[in-house]
Amino acid sequence: MANTETLERFFSYVDQNQEHYVTRLREAVAIPSVSADADHREDVYRMGDWLIGLFKQLNISYEVAEPGTHVLDGKTLKLPPILLGTYGNDPNKKTILVYGHYDVQPALIEDGWRSDPWKLTEDSTGRLVGRGSSDDKGPIIGWLNAIEAHQKAGIEFPVNLKICFEGMEENGSEGLDDLILREANRYFKGVDAVCISDNYWLGVTKPCLTYGLRGISYFKVTVSGPGRDLHSGVFGGTVYEPMTDLIILFSKLVTSDGKILIPGINDDVAELTDEEKETYKSIEFKLQELQSAIESQTNLFDNETQTLQARWRYPALSIHGIEGAFSAPGAKTVLPCKVSGKFSIRSVPNMDPDKVTACVEKYLKEEFAKLGSKNKLNIESLHGAKAWVSSPNHWNFVAAAKAVEKVFKCKPDLTREGGSIPVTLTFQDALNKNVLLLPMGRGDDGAHSTNEKLDRSNYIQGIKLLGTYLHEVAAVKST
Amino acid sequence: MANTETLERFFSYVDQNQEHYVTRLREAVAIPSVSADADHREDVYRMGDWLIGLFKQLNISYEVAEPGTHVLDGKTLKLPPILLGTYGNDPNKKTILVYGHYDVQPALIEDGWRSDPWKLTEDSTGRLVGRGSSDDKGPIIGWLNAIEAHQKAGIEFPVNLKICFEGMEENGSEGLDDLILREANRYFKGVDAVCISDNYWLGVTKPCLTYGLRGISYFKVTVSGPGRDLHSGVFGGTVYEPMTDLIILFSKLVTSDGKILIPGINDDVAELTDEEKETYKSIEFKLQELQSAIESQTNLFDNETQTLQARWRYPALSIHGIEGAFSAPGAKTVLPCKVSGKFSIRSVPNMDPDKVTACVEKYLKEEFAKLGSKNKLNIESLHGAKAWVSSPNHWNFVAAAKAVEKVFKCKPDLTREGGSIPVTLTFQDALNKNVLLLPMGRGDDGAHSTNEKLDRSNYIQGIKLLGTYLHEVAAVKST
Repeated sequence: MANTETLERFFSYVDQNQEHYVTRLREAVAIPSVSADADHREDVYRMGDWLIGLFKQLNISYEVAEPGTHVLDGKTLKLPPILLGTYGNDPNKKTILVYGHYDVQPALIEDGWRSDPWKLTEDSTGRLVGRGSSDDKGPIIGWLNAIEAHQKAGIEFPVNLKICFEGMEENGSEGLDDLILREANRYFKGVDAVCISDNYWLGVTKPCLTYGLRGISYFKVTVSGPGRDLHSGVFGGTVYEPMTDLIILFSKLVTSDGKILIPGINDDVAELTDEEKETYKSIEFKLQELQSAIESQTNLFDNETQTLQARWRYPALSIHGIEGAFSAPGAKTVLPCKVSGKFSIRSVPNMDPDKVTACVEKYLKEEFAKLGSKNKLNIESLHGAKAWVSSPNHWNFVAAAKAVEKVFKCKPDLTREGGSIPVTLTFQDALNKNVLLLPMGRGDDGAHSTNEKLDRSNYIQGIKLLGTYLHEVAAVKST
Repeated sequence: MANTETLERFFSYVDQNQEHYVTRLREAVAIPSVSADADHREDVYRMGDWLIGLFKQLNISYEVAEPGTHVLDGKTLKLPPILLGTYGNDPNKKTILVYGHYDVQPALIEDGWRSDPWKLTEDSTGRLVGRGSSDDKGPIIGWLNAIEAHQKAGIEFPVNLKICFEGMEENGSEGLDDLILREANRYFKGVDAVCISDNYWLGVTKPCLTYGLRGISYFKVTVSGPGRDLHSGVFGGTVYEPMTDLIILFSKLVTSDGKILIPGINDDVAELTDEEKETYKSIEFKLQELQSAIESQTNLFDNETQTLQARWRYPALSIHGIEGAFSAPGAKTVLPCKVSGKFSIRSVPNMDPDKVTACVEKYLKEEFAKLGSKNKLNIESLHGAKAWVSSPNHWNFVAAAKAVEKVFKCKPDLTREGGSIPVTLTFQDALNKNVLLLPMGRGDDGAHSTNEKLDRSNYIQGIKLLGTYLHEVAAVKST
């Protein structure tokens, strides 16, 4: 298995059927499966049905899990089904669980799309532009295309595949965690490792494997005083103003250059090992890429390594905004009676969300007490997700790295990401198996932006990559 | 003139015609002349016509000034007319200019009104509930009722009256300042003093004369960095965050207990004289009234005098809110690229708005420089109005004080207000005459709130007060 001749037959079949794969992606993009918009819920169901059609066509056995209902835009709606698929059941093969999502972000041509977002349009440089092309219809169809290519080219499929495709990823993945926990010892029983293709290369030229994600602890801090909003002319100077107190408190969270001032937050941050330090040297990343992404030169660090480490392996605190204060244009003279500031801490190994919350609460209460204000303070932890880090030395990653070398003729970058993909940690914890993030798209795909695209070459090479990865997984077993 | 017999005849006539005055107020309240809502503009015009009808009925000669057009809710609308009236032209009499407004705040029964806001409803305690009852239809109709009472009771009107009623007070008084400046030496020529009945007693039991208002300097401070909003997961920790910088800057404006930290702001505050200090002793005001108004016990001072002085004669700084940050409910992980904080300083004699602006700009620039941030700072002065203070010893106030004693059998409190009524200063500066604020309603009328009311007794006694004041003005002349 994974011999050169087999892979070449696979690659050749994929190359010859490019147009077929693009047509298939075009069909999927044409279904506006926006999960966050009640008016598009029928389209999300339709997208699920479209995938089930493909499952049937490819002889993938499946179950449809119905997570129940939820309320959106004032309407009670059926949650999109979670599609569970099984392809192969050979006890002599490894079993890989692949996760992806078939719902997409909203898109309106008025937002600045150069073409209809629901009509996959290829430009002169081979960019396949359309909503969901890269996030995440390209990758999930990629897995199915790889299965089909094996069938059509008469190549034995190297592993057993378990599939988990959800339709609520862009709207909170409601019901998914429960399902994973419930199915861990049933549908997902026997899974040897997990692979998720739902993130991106760091840049635009070099593939990567992603082995870490930051966690998040999100806080809502409310200061309240008067029973109603007051006129600042009549009452300014005579009452403790909640807004003043909140602003003073929030000024004590973080410095302008990003140093978190809450005692204890930095205590548990994993030490930077020499081995990890070494990995940063080969990573293809230029400061200009950051500056281009932030559309400014307001980067904190003037070198790549510090920038990547700050994004991936050190905590960061961002203040998002204030609820309850005057936020419209103009000059209203309100003295808000109750204001809720929101901030979050991006956490990293080995920080513990409960300890983060405890540190935040202790510190803010102490600082608030120092003010001597008669206002009231309330601190809520809105949500917390632990950071995730995996070992890039695990056979799952080794297999993926070999696959990258065979398809792209280069070693992948080993990356982490600054954001959270909570399902990653859920899979790891529920199944106790290694999870690999194996991106198909490039760093400039614009997943949640206008003119989302997947480069044709990334799509086609991506199909090869996913298939080759499975062959390498099988090869690991046979050694 | 102003002899007891004349006044008693006037009082008696007013008392006997109470129901007529309430009916008249009910007619006015029934016209929803909301100036800030384009859908109600026709009602504002209609309210103007209703007043013109009354002018004609009372033989008040008038001019209708059309201030032009403006844009509201995307529509170009004709501004409501400013009604100029003249009643009497006797060179042997003093001429008093009275100002008021015939537009009102918005009102929806769903906001929490106990009765239809456009239907004047009297409750069991004699509260005439309806939008505009107190602000400012009661007072402006009060002047007209006083004229009518003199005519009907056969009493010579003691002064010449000039009238200026506008229909845009609740929406920025657009066009009014220009008109006052233009008419200062024409329509308003010969005016000896000005009286405005558009504010409130300090409490609920004792009448007052108001001789001072704070000014305001309103600032918008913008910190910008990235070219677009960023995801805090991807970019948190790698860029200078505008929100962090703004919060730190704003934390340096004022302490929790209201001390302004901007150097220079307190330098020009008028000294508290012994004479002024004395006036606070007799003012009827209890801390409980403040606590009841703010619906909490978060008052800064534990005594009445300091509270009143803080409201009336010392500056105060309030932070109103932030534009451009996340202000909705929920937990969005945005890193806003451009945030504009709004704050205002209530100014007092002898502060100069230009100096306030200069102090604010210098200080914020210095503090921002200390941060060493790569973000950009921009400071805008959105609007400024000087504080106003008048001499309560002027004959205009003396006449009003005597009128209060005759109608209410007590000396009025001498009050100031914490807010701004810009037209006050415009009249004073344009005409170079004393301006008196002579309120009709009580401190709990809820002018801009739900269930706005004018107590029947305040309305009826108010008509007597306005008339008696004019007699006392005449008496000043004859001494």
